[in-house]
Amino acid sequence: MNYSRRFRALRRGMKNQGIEALLITHLPDVRYLCGFTGSNAALAVSSTLAVLFTDGRYSVQAKQQTQSARVVISAASALRDACVWLSKCGAKFAYFSPEHVTVAALQTMRESIDRRRRNFFTPLDAPLVVNLRLVKDEEELAAISKAAALGCELFAELLDKIEAGTTEIAVAAELEFAARTRGAEAMSFETIVASGPRSALPHGHATLNRLPVNGFVTLDFGVILNGYCSDMTRTVHIGKINRRERFAYEAVLEAQQAAVEAVSPGATCGEVDEAARGLLRKAGLDQYFTHSTGHGVGIEIHEAPRIAKEQEAVLVPGMVITIEPGVYVPGKFGIRIEDMVTVTDCAQRVLTPAPKTLIEL
Amino acid sequence: MNYSRRFRALRRGMKNQGIEALLITHLPDVRYLCGFTGSNAALAVSSTLAVLFTDGRYSVQAKQQTQSARVVISAASALRDACVWLSKCGAKFAYFSPEHVTVAALQTMRESIDRRRRNFFTPLDAPLVVNLRLVKDEEELAAISKAAALGCELFAELLDKIEAGTTEIAVAAELEFAARTRGAEAMSFETIVASGPRSALPHGHATLNRLPVNGFVTLDFGVILNGYCSDMTRTVHIGKINRRERFAYEAVLEAQQAAVEAVSPGATCGEVDEAARGLLRKAGLDQYFTHSTGHGVGIEIHEAPRIAKEQEAVLVPGMVITIEPGVYVPGKFGIRIEDMVTVTDCAQRVLTPAPKTLIEL
Repeated sequence: MNYSRRFRALRRGMKNQGIEALLITHLPDVRYLCGFTGSNAALAVSSTLAVLFTDGRYSVQAKQQTQSARVVISAASALRDACVWLSKCGAKFAYFSPEHVTVAALQTMRESIDRRRRNFFTPLDAPLVVNLRLVKDEEELAAISKAAALGCELFAELLDKIEAGTTEIAVAAELEFAARTRGAEAMSFETIVASGPRSALPHGHATLNRLPVNGFVTLDFGVILNGYCSDMTRTVHIGKINRRERFAYEAVLEAQQAAVEAVSPGATCGEVDEAARGLLRKAGLDQYFTHSTGHGVGIEIHEAPRIAKEQEAVLVPGMVITIEPGVYVPGKFGIRIEDMVTVTDCAQRVLTPAPKTLIEL
Repeated sequence: MNYSRRFRALRRGMKNQGIEALLITHLPDVRYLCGFTGSNAALAVSSTLAVLFTDGRYSVQAKQQTQSARVVISAASALRDACVWLSKCGAKFAYFSPEHVTVAALQTMRESIDRRRRNFFTPLDAPLVVNLRLVKDEEELAAISKAAALGCELFAELLDKIEAGTTEIAVAAELEFAARTRGAEAMSFETIVASGPRSALPHGHATLNRLPVNGFVTLDFGVILNGYCSDMTRTVHIGKINRRERFAYEAVLEAQQAAVEAVSPGATCGEVDEAARGLLRKAGLDQYFTHSTGHGVGIEIHEAPRIAKEQEAVLVPGMVITIEPGVYVPGKFGIRIEDMVTVTDCAQRVLTPAPKTLIEL
């Protein structure tokens, strides 16, 4: 990854907003900017320098991984040391992301420096690193595409393992083993295998429940490969599907395809959401579509933008989002179909080309 | 789990501190108090009522899981709705945990209610739910013991899979597959398999590196079973161990055993840390022991208390902590040995009785 390019972009953003100094504590932001993946870090950025503060557990790793920033191993508190450094870098204010700093951490930050400079630490008005991460660079797109492609391969192979009587957890175990064996660092979230009436739970993690002789199985999973997440959902059916279930499946599929096609530079996130939601409304199923249509994906499984009702944010080339409408009839069944999609210069490209037509097992 | 007992204990704590209303947004705290496991929740607690606010994705699940609290599905924002409810519950102030509320969330909370009540939301001075969770009840101890026992079984079986030439990730994959197959909901953190010189990285996640013909392999892993985490580390050696490595291994083992034995009601966390650190100092290895000795474990993998230098907190029966000293010689090798230990009425009980004498493969 080209970290020096990212720092240059960050400094342009800082300059535009009149920001002389910045404290970055959100670990995915730290990783994005300088490559360090440890679990404790505070990255202090002035207009000319960047210093990564971490602790003794990472003395070897931090020096191996970190690029474009100097590394300091803190004896006591990485956060406090970063604050002290910032207070001496010549800036009048140091900004931080209020979404990623707790009330307690802010207190610690303020107590770390001269008490007369009580307003030294100032919340950012507009997101800064979030905005950089919103549009993926080529190396990121390549990494995300690889993770998404691995997801599709895993799904194709998993179909053989899906049969009545198997537990949901056994299906998840096979999937996760195959993912690991192919080099995934981890799953990007707790694997969802929700079968029969449990498919009506949008976030039904795999349990010891057994797959039914007749019913849907929703599989929602992702892998982390080289630090980037994939995310996809397919819903398959075991046994003979009834007319109501088939109608709902086709409606979700049409809604999902319409939303994918609505993805293009200049479209708002709200318009993409409405492309799916409107079709489900026409089918009389919108009351069962109880969540938003999608979200950004990258280093984190949930990133900006939100693809939801009335969101005004505009899509631009290089963004990577999920499109995942669903229908959940409580106590009966649920269906969700999800792809990862990247916004291209003129339209969109689907990163998860696994089949979406109904698979009956 | 006996949620009504937990709420009673919470209300006793609130009463003692003169707290009429409380907002709980930290998800493990929500789960602890009412059983709900969803990814979005705000639990509002007054002196007589408790209401869980979540969103439409969880309308079925929240009603199935939640005990001792009423469930409200929020159309827009669970957090805002909880704030409005609290502002009308008759309390003068509502308290929140400053460790778990971001600066941005606090702003949202304040904007949700009448602006004349700007100081309605007040940070807690002393931890409240943390203190309840610090001491595990019998059901929790049973759940944690089961998770820890599963960890030991998995380790015993894994020994067959550890051999020169296998990738670290393949070892992790086997471990995680076995964990899942036995019912684990997930691993409690990203599995560490650090071999050869990588064993000197205290947090070396499994990579595609191959296990060496000669060197240490550190395995640090945990499972989540029924919502409770396990955590254990063993370091084994492949090939012929040299004298320096053996000396270090024996020193870590002695330090670890001494710290385990130091665990008893009335001991401070700092004393337990010193039991390990002091022995490593005598062995001339303390400069290579770059982290603290342990931490609490329960619903979260890292909980209070911290077993670290000069920590004054006193151990009481029912606490569950890890004891995990290590020695890391940069570029050469590393060793860590970790058990989970519960404080009993008179001493301690080890929850992870897997062998600790050097295993040479």
